[in-house]
Amino acid sequence: MARIINGKEIAAEIRAEVASDAVLLKNDGIVPHLSVILVGENPASQVYVKSKTKACQEAGISSETILYPKDCAEETVLNKVRELNSFPNVHGILVQLPLPNHIDEQKVIETINPDKDIDGFHPVNMGKLASGMTDGYVSCTPAGIIELFIRSGITIEGKRVVIVGRSNIVGKPVGLLLLRKGPFADATVTFCHSRTKDLTGIVKQADIIIAAVGRPHTITKDMVRKGAVIIDVGMNRIEDNSRKRGYRLAGDVDFAEVESIASAITPVPGGVGPMTIAMLLKNTITAATRLTGKE
Amino acid sequence: MARIINGKEIAAEIRAEVASDAVLLKNDGIVPHLSVILVGENPASQVYVKSKTKACQEAGISSETILYPKDCAEETVLNKVRELNSFPNVHGILVQLPLPNHIDEQKVIETINPDKDIDGFHPVNMGKLASGMTDGYVSCTPAGIIELFIRSGITIEGKRVVIVGRSNIVGKPVGLLLLRKGPFADATVTFCHSRTKDLTGIVKQADIIIAAVGRPHTITKDMVRKGAVIIDVGMNRIEDNSRKRGYRLAGDVDFAEVESIASAITPVPGGVGPMTIAMLLKNTITAATRLTGKE
Repeated sequence: MARIINGKEIAAEIRAEVASDAVLLKNDGIVPHLSVILVGENPASQVYVKSKTKACQEAGISSETILYPKDCAEETVLNKVRELNSFPNVHGILVQLPLPNHIDEQKVIETINPDKDIDGFHPVNMGKLASGMTDGYVSCTPAGIIELFIRSGITIEGKRVVIVGRSNIVGKPVGLLLLRKGPFADATVTFCHSRTKDLTGIVKQADIIIAAVGRPHTITKDMVRKGAVIIDVGMNRIEDNSRKRGYRLAGDVDFAEVESIASAITPVPGGVGPMTIAMLLKNTITAATRLTGKE
Repeated sequence: MARIINGKEIAAEIRAEVASDAVLLKNDGIVPHLSVILVGENPASQVYVKSKTKACQEAGISSETILYPKDCAEETVLNKVRELNSFPNVHGILVQLPLPNHIDEQKVIETINPDKDIDGFHPVNMGKLASGMTDGYVSCTPAGIIELFIRSGITIEGKRVVIVGRSNIVGKPVGLLLLRKGPFADATVTFCHSRTKDLTGIVKQADIIIAAVGRPHTITKDMVRKGAVIIDVGMNRIEDNSRKRGYRLAGDVDFAEVESIASAITPVPGGVGPMTIAMLLKNTITAATRLTGKE
């Protein structure tokens, strides 16, 4: 049976480290601070933002959430971002996505000062990642996946990694990270997606499978080579009336089917999910450290 | 025998198109202009810069080359870049690489206004490429490879592309271009490099091989599947006393060996090489058009 990669536990480790870094900064008179902008009342977004600010509090990071109604003007959001850019006591700026349709997400992202872009979505940060530079911010889920490898002792060098999904927030950045030179990188990386032919044949060659498709049961047992490592980024809500909230979470991988074939696997929930928030905290501390010259 | 993909001919087509675009701009009172900075006396760099400015002249693009001695201060180069950023009649800025060791290349690149960065090396342009945005500049060799596919009628959608080499100027950007959604993209992309195990087995699966390693004869006949398309980015100088200049150019692919196996192949010279200069001209025209609001 596959070893379970316990993301919850590893995330707790990182959060504890972040909390001690926050204490050190406070001893230097610096209060690390994250500002979150939330537009509209998307229930999932509300849940995410609440988790993030709660995690900040627990780690000793000050945070604020700026709420706007769903019909708020694009310029209002842009002006708030500009204001936050200019405040020296704000170290991280996070605009919760998705934004309502009338607001240009890309424009908002590009307005954030790259040095405060702890989500790593600004083209400058994406470009630094793509160029193998280490002075930018890496988006939280990809960064969290790398930490999972490091802290579970799973080596990457020379391994065949197949990534299913080519999104800007997971698939592409995690592949670029794995393609860098050095430890916990140097992988041979294949990107698959909806237009890939013979997905089964390609995924079956992988030493490491990263599933980031957003569709449950995409990775089935016929796709998994004996002993493969599986990272499941999926967070799909499946209707389930036996649960109080009416749904359960399922990954992109058919966990029950592949558990006996893989050598290690992340569960959903409790795998990649908790890492995303941990890395957000870590990025915020990094921003506070860099912006105040304490690096 | 493989069809020869004639880069020289395709590049000439593009250069003719650029020349007519330049005429149109001039009719609007705009003279497209490229400024090139060359530091030191690296003979290869001198040859490249000469070819680039000659190509500009032929296409009706005004150009200037700013020469500095090899011991010139980093600040001198940075100040020149800043000055060129501020000149409205300068549309493209190119700093010929490599720079002498005492000058921080990345710092120079990041000082160029991304809107004038017709080499596409600035993190903003790299990030836009990685994010699938189309309002940035794509570096010239990768952009030229895509043009070769388009103008040779070689489809990419759903194909397995294996890229050998993960450099920032060829391997990674061309892979990111092929991974985008839409026509002449949507490929399944694998990145191989010096740490890849079983290179032969992986390359042998490719419908399209892109060799960008910088080492002659890296791709041999046992790596090529019958009917594969091969793009050879290599430009290696091999000592050859039978030539007047003492060397001949060789690609990364063993051309003679694979010619009978591949369905199409780029020669060296006369394949990818001429495309790089053609795309530099094209990017300069695009910059002149965008910066003067003529888009």
